[in-house]
Amino acid sequence: MTDDFPPELVVSRWFNTRTPLTLQGLRGRVVVLHAFQMLCPGCVSHALPQAEKLHRMFGAADVAVVGLHTVFEHHAAMTPLALEAFIHEYRLTFPIGVDQAGTNGPLPVTMERYGLRGTPTTLVIDRTGRLRQHHFGQMDDLALGYTVGALLAEAARPVEAAAADDAKDGCDEAGCAVPSR
Amino acid sequence: MTDDFPPELVVSRWFNTRTPLTLQGLRGRVVVLHAFQMLCPGCVSHALPQAEKLHRMFGAADVAVVGLHTVFEHHAAMTPLALEAFIHEYRLTFPIGVDQAGTNGPLPVTMERYGLRGTPTTLVIDRTGRLRQHHFGQMDDLALGYTVGALLAEAARPVEAAAADDAKDGCDEAGCAVPSR
Amino acid sequence: MTDDFPPELVVSRWFNTRTPLTLQGLRGRVVVLHAFQMLCPGCVSHALPQAEKLHRMFGAADVAVVGLHTVFEHHAAMTPLALEAFIHEYRLTFPIGVDQAGTNGPLPVTMERYGLRGTPTTLVIDRTGRLRQHHFGQMDDLALGYTVGALLAEAARPVEAAAADDAKDGCDEAGCAVPSR
Amino acid sequence: MTDDFPPELVVSRWFNTRTPLTLQGLRGRVVVLHAFQMLCPGCVSHALPQAEKLHRMFGAADVAVVGLHTVFEHHAAMTPLALEAFIHEYRLTFPIGVDQAGTNGPLPVTMERYGLRGTPTTLVIDRTGRLRQHHFGQMDDLALGYTVGALLAEAARPVEAAAADDAKDGCDEAGCAVPSR
Repeated sequence: MTDDFPPELVVSRWFNTRTPLTLQGLRGRVVVLHAFQMLCPGCVSHALPQAEKLHRMFGAADVAVVGLHTVFEHHAAMTPLALEAFIHEYRLTFPIGVDQAGTNGPLPVTMERYGLRGTPTTLVIDRTGRLRQHHFGQMDDLALGYTVGALLAEAARPVEAAAADDAKDGCDEAGCAVPSR
Repeated sequence: MTDDFPPELVVSRWFNTRTPLTLQGLRGRVVVLHAFQMLCPGCVSHALPQAEKLHRMFGAADVAVVGLHTVFEHHAAMTPLALEAFIHEYRLTFPIGVDQAGTNGPLPVTMERYGLRGTPTTLVIDRTGRLRQHHFGQMDDLALGYTVGALLAEAARPVEAAAADDAKDGCDEAGCAVPSR
Repeated sequence: MTDDFPPELVVSRWFNTRTPLTLQGLRGRVVVLHAFQMLCPGCVSHALPQAEKLHRMFGAADVAVVGLHTVFEHHAAMTPLALEAFIHEYRLTFPIGVDQAGTNGPLPVTMERYGLRGTPTTLVIDRTGRLRQHHFGQMDDLALGYTVGALLAEAARPVEAAAADDAKDGCDEAGCAVPSR
Repeated sequence: MTDDFPPELVVSRWFNTRTPLTLQGLRGRVVVLHAFQMLCPGCVSHALPQAEKLHRMFGAADVAVVGLHTVFEHHAAMTPLALEAFIHEYRLTFPIGVDQAGTNGPLPVTMERYGLRGTPTTLVIDRTGRLRQHHFGQMDDLALGYTVGALLAEAARPVEAAAADDAKDGCDEAGCAVPSR
């Protein structure tokens, strides 16, 4: 497991959430971040059904499942419009953000900042905001369930610290606007 | 099984074949026609892998596996450009045609003429050009293998008739231009 | 494909059939013979479900699916009594014979005569009684369906010959006693 | 989740362990107890592969995976001798105990004391020896991984208490004899 505070998400458009999400705003919950592309076969057959199952199974248990559409190839085919149809047809219900297109190459911004190697990638962040798992490729259900269970069982950080963060970033319980960096 | 001569394919663009294909040009072979959409989950998880397997397994045995991209929803998402990326990522190697967009509604031309109910649909045509099976939904491998085996074992029609057809439509062995109708 | 008349089955006990079966008695039908062991993982996960599906799908179409319990290891664990419980729990409905124990080693009689390499093995016999396919290991559904379809489509042998065989071996339509060899 | 101290295992024979195991001896670890029958299809296709995977994945992480062969039907077919062959063929490597045959009916002793409804049943016991999950039927990998992760993350009970238990029951680190009850 890694143990860093990861960079904030940079998202150009959100689906399945009325309020934009930020890692800051999700503090206090375990966050499972699924980086995928809609034309990546391993994402479609394994990672996305896993994310959807996780969302339905543990959504009420302080776990936030968040998708991130990190398009680094076939940009003209995987537009937000195409993603919208994809989300509809595959009946995905968890929040999904479009990683903002990069200006210096094919990699989108969040993907580049995180140093992702490709899709699918599963990132698990603990209640205090630290990145605890970074897994490239398909991840086994037992292993992912284990990580989520272990991180949920860890004590949340002190309430005072959380309140301070919230004040700093102006988040409400439903989510937050992307903070200026 | 049905037993009719189906309408000719009306295709605006082909992938995985240098020569446009027609049912006329495929006379003498058993044709398995897979109508699909790239954002149809049942097509992606079942029908397209089945078509690819059939193509690799029996391609040399007088079976022509042909895909038909029959887009009847989300037209802006499932463009030929998006299909090209999809074919590349899913490593599909059998010939795939784009069903020509209709002028009076969302259904493409071939799909409407065949009266297809949706995707995936599997159509099996015998050596003489008759439609022998029309299956909407996922089709079992055993059942499809059985149909293909049975139709391959049927005697092809007389050589003279085949030669006459070829002359009429100006086809060569690799395929044919879409005949004027 | 092979092309021989295989030896007759030597079976010490039958399940799921009131009359003992013989290849002679099954002439005129395509016979799919599944050699298996109840403690063989590849048989349990793949070959037996495939045989059951084939039986339900094509049983009415002149296809006889027959199981053969060819125990060549763990003899004390895979007794006919254990097999009976296994057939009950796995809800197998096609006829299954127990290959007769050998006298000179661990291999049962039919298995040795056929030269089987192990389990699962799928043997396909045409309407005239010739062995046309001998496949050791898991067999793909498309490939098995194809073979069955192709052999069913072949013309059955002349009625006179069939009648003569029936007379010779004293079989009725439901099955026959194992002929003396 | 339940929250009781479950009865001790009553086992007539162990496989894959040189020392008999007891729940007392496993205190301090999370115990996943898989009750199964070797002729139960849901056990063979799902629960046993899951148990084996769990054993290989988390065996070093303070998780004890233990199988319990709770035969309540077809007793003559599912003997310890047959189980031994089954374990060999399915390459199961986690410790498996044979639930002791009952004297007043078909249910074995441990199964009756636990009030199990059938097989497969998954029981998860925390580090302090309390039964925290009792699941009849196939259990999802994500859900089981979650439970194991959460229970592992809970603080183990005080060292003094553990030492006292060990003394009482005469266990060593590898396991313990079944305590008199």
